[in-house]
Amino acid sequence: MSLAYYYDLLSPPARTLHIILKMSGVQFEDCPVALLKGEHMTEDYKNNINRFQKVPCIIDGGFKLAESIAILRYLSAQGKIPEHLYSKNLVEQARIDECLEWQQTTLASTCALYFRAKWLEPTLSGGKTQPSPEKLETLKTRMETNLDLVEKLWLESSDFLCGNQMTVADIFAACVLEQTRIAEYDVRAQYPKIRAWLKRVREACNPYFDYAHQTVYKIGGSEPN
Amino acid sequence: MSLAYYYDLLSPPARTLHIILKMSGVQFEDCPVALLKGEHMTEDYKNNINRFQKVPCIIDGGFKLAESIAILRYLSAQGKIPEHLYSKNLVEQARIDECLEWQQTTLASTCALYFRAKWLEPTLSGGKTQPSPEKLETLKTRMETNLDLVEKLWLESSDFLCGNQMTVADIFAACVLEQTRIAEYDVRAQYPKIRAWLKRVREACNPYFDYAHQTVYKIGGSEPN
Repeated sequence: MSLAYYYDLLSPPARTLHIILKMSGVQFEDCPVALLKGEHMTEDYKNNINRFQKVPCIIDGGFKLAESIAILRYLSAQGKIPEHLYSKNLVEQARIDECLEWQQTTLASTCALYFRAKWLEPTLSGGKTQPSPEKLETLKTRMETNLDLVEKLWLESSDFLCGNQMTVADIFAACVLEQTRIAEYDVRAQYPKIRAWLKRVREACNPYFDYAHQTVYKIGGSEPN
Repeated sequence: MSLAYYYDLLSPPARTLHIILKMSGVQFEDCPVALLKGEHMTEDYKNNINRFQKVPCIIDGGFKLAESIAILRYLSAQGKIPEHLYSKNLVEQARIDECLEWQQTTLASTCALYFRAKWLEPTLSGGKTQPSPEKLETLKTRMETNLDLVEKLWLESSDFLCGNQMTVADIFAACVLEQTRIAEYDVRAQYPKIRAWLKRVREACNPYFDYAHQTVYKIGGSEPN
């Protein structure tokens, strides 16, 4: 029975899973979903693919599953994700889980809110919806509070977020941060440790990192240096 | 080696874990942390308990771990959480993980933002900080978008969020929704399925549910009916 992967490379968690699937050598049926065209908003998508009308999601031999980390764990439990990316050691996996959850409730959510206000909502409205400078400044401050924590705590004394080996936690975070390029925010300019870490993550994940980020680089105007 | 649990019953995920620990019969060293008194903001707490200065967190024989779902998974992997609460079956666990992740990125975050604007920020500022009616309305609408999904999708055809048996996903969600009582929002008045489901969850978790919610009920003015 085959695994179908539904994604849009414009979505950070969908890019993350795409990179992890490719790095892990998992075979999947390629099911791109164009969010900007509203392909996730059809009745067919709602009824037959994902009732919450989001990406990423999978259908694995009839079993429908959404939410990126849940999908990662499901595939890991099946032995499809290499342990160097998502350890099965009790303490190491707990450390990665802690980082993933921290990201979702802080880093990813604040970066997403900034991205939406600065780029997505203006783009979807054809420029009619524009955030006030005050709102944008508030969202930027909240995002930078978490970027500070990545720079000063998570990367304080290690090459990667959960130690000196790259794990899925780094790929999730890197894809979130690259999204800010679209919103014309240059995370590399302000955060030297994040800049060096992003370079390490990109190199460790290539060619899959650059493939997954082709649209981000294009809209953002350039590849990162 | 002992397990120390750091929590404040004013925090929904800390309440959730408190209930789960009690229901699971896990022995722990009781370490309450008074958030409103800023006990999590000391240097000692940052250096010795949790570098991110939040609750809940644990120290298990020297191993420090934060983030509620990471802690749940860590304890589950040690066999400390009954499988009827957090199944080890591949598909059942994936379904619970999906629900937990959906909650964190949608339901929990939007309920928390409403709670903060309506109650926490005014309370911490001694009434000086008050949200504008427009801001509060926007936050309420976002929260209700997700409450609608709980009512119409998650509880569409089952007694609990992940089927007809209560799991940790229900306890996490119930603790998030009870928090809105403090912000004078009556989720039971508008959502009949949620109302009936909350009753089921409370009954299944008592006496631990009511113990964990004593402060919520007190500030909210009454116990739910």
